[in-house]
Amino acid sequence: MYQAGYLKHFTEQVFLALGCSEADAQLAARVLISADLRGVDSHGIARLAGYVRLYDHGRLNPNPDIRVVYETPSTAVVDGDRGLGLVVAPKAMQIAIEKAKVAGSGWISVRNSNHFGIAGYHAMMALEHDMIGWTMTNAAPLVTPTFSLDKMLGTNPIAVAVPAGEETPFVADFASTAVAYGKFEILQRKGLPAPLGWAQDADGNPTTDSNAVKSGGGLLPLGSDREHGSHKGYGLGAIVDIFSGVLSGANFGPWVPPFATAGFMSAGEGVGLGTGHFVGAMRVDGFRPADEFKKDMDKWIRAFQNARPVDGRKVLVPGDPEREIEAERRVNGIALLEPVVLSLDELAKRFSIPFEINL
Amino acid sequence: MYQAGYLKHFTEQVFLALGCSEADAQLAARVLISADLRGVDSHGIARLAGYVRLYDHGRLNPNPDIRVVYETPSTAVVDGDRGLGLVVAPKAMQIAIEKAKVAGSGWISVRNSNHFGIAGYHAMMALEHDMIGWTMTNAAPLVTPTFSLDKMLGTNPIAVAVPAGEETPFVADFASTAVAYGKFEILQRKGLPAPLGWAQDADGNPTTDSNAVKSGGGLLPLGSDREHGSHKGYGLGAIVDIFSGVLSGANFGPWVPPFATAGFMSAGEGVGLGTGHFVGAMRVDGFRPADEFKKDMDKWIRAFQNARPVDGRKVLVPGDPEREIEAERRVNGIALLEPVVLSLDELAKRFSIPFEINL
Repeated sequence: MYQAGYLKHFTEQVFLALGCSEADAQLAARVLISADLRGVDSHGIARLAGYVRLYDHGRLNPNPDIRVVYETPSTAVVDGDRGLGLVVAPKAMQIAIEKAKVAGSGWISVRNSNHFGIAGYHAMMALEHDMIGWTMTNAAPLVTPTFSLDKMLGTNPIAVAVPAGEETPFVADFASTAVAYGKFEILQRKGLPAPLGWAQDADGNPTTDSNAVKSGGGLLPLGSDREHGSHKGYGLGAIVDIFSGVLSGANFGPWVPPFATAGFMSAGEGVGLGTGHFVGAMRVDGFRPADEFKKDMDKWIRAFQNARPVDGRKVLVPGDPEREIEAERRVNGIALLEPVVLSLDELAKRFSIPFEINL
Repeated sequence: MYQAGYLKHFTEQVFLALGCSEADAQLAARVLISADLRGVDSHGIARLAGYVRLYDHGRLNPNPDIRVVYETPSTAVVDGDRGLGLVVAPKAMQIAIEKAKVAGSGWISVRNSNHFGIAGYHAMMALEHDMIGWTMTNAAPLVTPTFSLDKMLGTNPIAVAVPAGEETPFVADFASTAVAYGKFEILQRKGLPAPLGWAQDADGNPTTDSNAVKSGGGLLPLGSDREHGSHKGYGLGAIVDIFSGVLSGANFGPWVPPFATAGFMSAGEGVGLGTGHFVGAMRVDGFRPADEFKKDMDKWIRAFQNARPVDGRKVLVPGDPEREIEAERRVNGIALLEPVVLSLDELAKRFSIPFEINL
């Protein structure tokens, strides 16, 4: 077990070693470790070595000039200058919040960035300002649209955070696919099959092969097949791609560069700059008094939490499970898998940063 | 077969008979018949008798004072004054477009409305202004969130319309459920079972009973079950409900009043005013020059249309199928089912409007 503070400090040291500023290294570490705290292990410190590989391949600028390229009172495009997505996205969100203070809402499409950690972190930045936060990002193509053999979209997540009054906030944060790719990696390691409806094989047939995506198949959009609405999941992933990639001038669709998978590092011929995000903030009191809104959100949350559950289950409000995991992990610490610990140990040796192996 | 113009004229006459102004009757008829033209038969003239029932039950104001209740440069709440959703929503969208012209984007949450026809119509209003259009609406509870026995959400659709250059626009328009309720009604009429994954029974078990929703069960969110991501479809429906209902001060969640189902007309105890919508418009050139954006959208659309298809299929871009149906129906006319024709004949007799029975 590792304490969050320990992992955060280690992460900071690694980003400092790459040449990031103190402030950027702290921010990036906070965003990355928030994933481990919230139970989204695939997007946390397990990816730290990947960011270093991005740097090694010349695709990461540790001292980016993150700037507004174009703007109106409520919109802008931000160029991330190949900086860490973990830094670019919260800075873009801060710009959205500042615009919302003046114009009621702020919407920023971001180009020339890369993986930004968990979408929920950035959306939740809006909460302390009594704003609703939105985040989306495109990602390297793993997903086959309905009836397609080609992988055309990433897992393209959406996060929306909504403040409440006495209740804890509503925080939805989900990929536009049936499952995250990380679930396949777990099954691959254990040599187990996947449920039907998660992936298709190279011929477009439903498959239980947990290696399908690596052997010419693809992840299925939310809805799994046409009969169960996969065209809706595809539509959702497409919206995320257009808002993040096409609107900003980043890469989009099949051209989005890979994150940092070994042997698949070069971004190939692009149609834009880096990876794209889309972030937004809306002032609640741009619509109605914030205290009235928050009272109604409390009513909404209680109604859903008190819905009659299926036997042995509980009706959850989006954000509840992550908050429960965070509360537990802040006390008991974070367990890391052996390959993750070994990847951190390698980084520790390379950058001469103290690190304790703790399995 | 009926020509669209014939059905539109008939619809106008009915709304005029209820006391709507000439302009409102024309607008409402155009929105309603656009659903029949685009192949969304469940949301077109089949619902005309339902709007009349809303009127009969005192829930429809034919001469509403549709007004902005509160606003900032890029946001507002509009009160629909119990007017036809078919009129309230396009008027709210017009306000969003005007705000976007000045502030870059415009976002309107609407209360005190009712069924607004197809979401896509309103989103597509943005296209001619080189804007991206958004529409959402909440609806009466038919959907059981993941692990819930209670129906807490409507089918809560989302539509997003994006302009392109030489290609036709991208128009996604989909419910946040595995299927629309209309698909069950078709199966009920034919006495056929439904595929697993569309509905659950009164105990929360998967069912093929196409009458399940009427016998204590519920529609399933997009994703169908927890293993295939139903919590994501639930999250999406929840976002639509919060933006449409809670943000505007309309009813939300289990309190959204029914559209106009016989025997289920009274809205019961509410927590807000009528049904809620959320509409938005973003100027493309609030982000980057419109011609650059549209060239990239053409590239996006062609890449997806040219993706290698599963044997015997075709990869579609959202909006393609509806556009093909519209082109065909504008030439060959619209076929209506017998119960729909009979419901129109009843309206014709009641309001002394000529109507030709044409099966």
